[in-house]
Amino acid sequence: MKAIGFKKSFKIEENESLIEIEKDMPKAVGLDIVVKVNAVSVNPADAKIRIRTAPDAQLETAKIMGYDAVGIVESIGEEVRNFKIGDRVFYAGDVTRDGSNAQFQAVDSRIVALAPKSLNDAQAAVMPLTSLTGYEALFDRLKVNPHEKKTILIIGGAGGVGSITTQIAKELTNLTVITTASRKETITWCKEMGADVVVNHKDLVNSVKEAGFETVDYIFNVADTKGHWDSMVELIAPFGMIASIVEFEGGVDLSMLQGKAAGFVWELMFTRSLFKMDDIARQGEILTDIANLIDCGRIKTTLTQTINGFSVESLKEAHKRVETSTSIGKLAIDYTK
Amino acid sequence: MKAIGFKKSFKIEENESLIEIEKDMPKAVGLDIVVKVNAVSVNPADAKIRIRTAPDAQLETAKIMGYDAVGIVESIGEEVRNFKIGDRVFYAGDVTRDGSNAQFQAVDSRIVALAPKSLNDAQAAVMPLTSLTGYEALFDRLKVNPHEKKTILIIGGAGGVGSITTQIAKELTNLTVITTASRKETITWCKEMGADVVVNHKDLVNSVKEAGFETVDYIFNVADTKGHWDSMVELIAPFGMIASIVEFEGGVDLSMLQGKAAGFVWELMFTRSLFKMDDIARQGEILTDIANLIDCGRIKTTLTQTINGFSVESLKEAHKRVETSTSIGKLAIDYTK
Repeated sequence: MKAIGFKKSFKIEENESLIEIEKDMPKAVGLDIVVKVNAVSVNPADAKIRIRTAPDAQLETAKIMGYDAVGIVESIGEEVRNFKIGDRVFYAGDVTRDGSNAQFQAVDSRIVALAPKSLNDAQAAVMPLTSLTGYEALFDRLKVNPHEKKTILIIGGAGGVGSITTQIAKELTNLTVITTASRKETITWCKEMGADVVVNHKDLVNSVKEAGFETVDYIFNVADTKGHWDSMVELIAPFGMIASIVEFEGGVDLSMLQGKAAGFVWELMFTRSLFKMDDIARQGEILTDIANLIDCGRIKTTLTQTINGFSVESLKEAHKRVETSTSIGKLAIDYTK
Repeated sequence: MKAIGFKKSFKIEENESLIEIEKDMPKAVGLDIVVKVNAVSVNPADAKIRIRTAPDAQLETAKIMGYDAVGIVESIGEEVRNFKIGDRVFYAGDVTRDGSNAQFQAVDSRIVALAPKSLNDAQAAVMPLTSLTGYEALFDRLKVNPHEKKTILIIGGAGGVGSITTQIAKELTNLTVITTASRKETITWCKEMGADVVVNHKDLVNSVKEAGFETVDYIFNVADTKGHWDSMVELIAPFGMIASIVEFEGGVDLSMLQGKAAGFVWELMFTRSLFKMDDIARQGEILTDIANLIDCGRIKTTLTQTINGFSVESLKEAHKRVETSTSIGKLAIDYTK
């Protein structure tokens, strides 16, 4: 079967930044299913992995990326109980294994769910990674109680994770959602996603205070952890919690949070599979929940761009667009078109 | 009335490190009660405040410390509903107000509870600040679910906070409690407090692993946050949480926790009163819970040393002992003897 990946880190413009590889068809054993991939999304994670994995030496085996997929179950392992051949499924996958930039992909059935019936392949393909990130950040890491009337500031509101986290927070909690956005079109988008208030990240502290919030109970930073550290320290409420998905170089002064007894926690959607955590099946459950929320009209796809065809060219174009961080919502590649 | 405090930071040996002051009798207004103080404890917080508050300039009004007290309600404000004159109460208090190093003290009734009946004044006086710290750390900050069978590593097991947190964790949760201690007498003490396993902090990672724990779900550091940072990063489980009460200079590399999607949170018992938080009455509720656990024999006092008399000399002696960090359990000053 055909797969696309890389053996060495190159700028996306360069010839071998992504290459086509012929691979054996994956086999479904144990809890795995094999899926015929119909559509995928390209996330910032793909670009980071491409750039960081092999900057110097050449990998022996090409790294196949792709951490979002929609497709049809082709075969199932002997321990799989919740899927049958022919099911249409969606999932983000596992960063330690071959990704969805391939015609077929083996994936642990516990992190898979039936795809939302009301979305086409491209619309569904952009949802798993960002939904898992937003859902885990809110409920597993920040431990938001759905009933409490508190406030969350999402720094980076218009991107993939910001867009779906806003929707999840508005649909499943009583949080007041403040997001950042600075351009007319991103402000409009954030409001469409359900943000109660949109503030400007360029003057974050004043923007939030002028909007009527002296402090916020939660902050979810999907844009720049270190760049906004001092502002987050100033804005977080006593006993508040900050979550982030954006790593950074060097240290930060954690003691600045001591007086407020506040805290900081990372969200990483891949942690459950990386560490083979006991509760890994929660990812399948979260995706089932998301699919249901979509099918009953409470959450909408964050798709804004679709590229057609499974080729080195289409994937390069997708990486190129994702590497510019100004995009709104998410991008899908429809392999079937 | 007589009070003891300081106007400028001195080493405890120096003459004016603590001085006697004549103050007006406090009045009970609103939610305040005035308590005739019978016994207090001296905590590391007192020594830190004495050393840091006025290193250069002289304060106009002396700072009265003392953040633990047992005494008798002398008068009550017009809004007080839960105490009457003559009640025997205990509390930690509020760092922004005059403390318990005085014959009488005004304190917000919402952070006060009836003292445990089964303890004498010195035994009860050592409990409030450390109990609130341990209880808040476990339940409000680390958000331990009492039913989950997880593990906690308490770094600094034999001191005041370590001792009571071990007891609270063993009585109120299903946590397996690992504490650090390195001397024979501190090891014995930690086991008396209920620690399931005692490990050596001088070789922390190996000690914990040799005890059979590859990782721990929670860490509560009451000894040295920065010194143990790398070990904590290595030992914390995926999705684990680290809490600390020990501030430090300079930054730490937070990104080391990203792969595990782990987090860090401060506990500071004074945050609720410092920020006049809406749920400040939880401190009175926690102390009521602690008093009940003591009176039914499930938690015991951590008192190990008592100094008699309310005088500059007795307080200086207490500060001196608290400034050496090797002590086991806690120290009380009985004002009535």
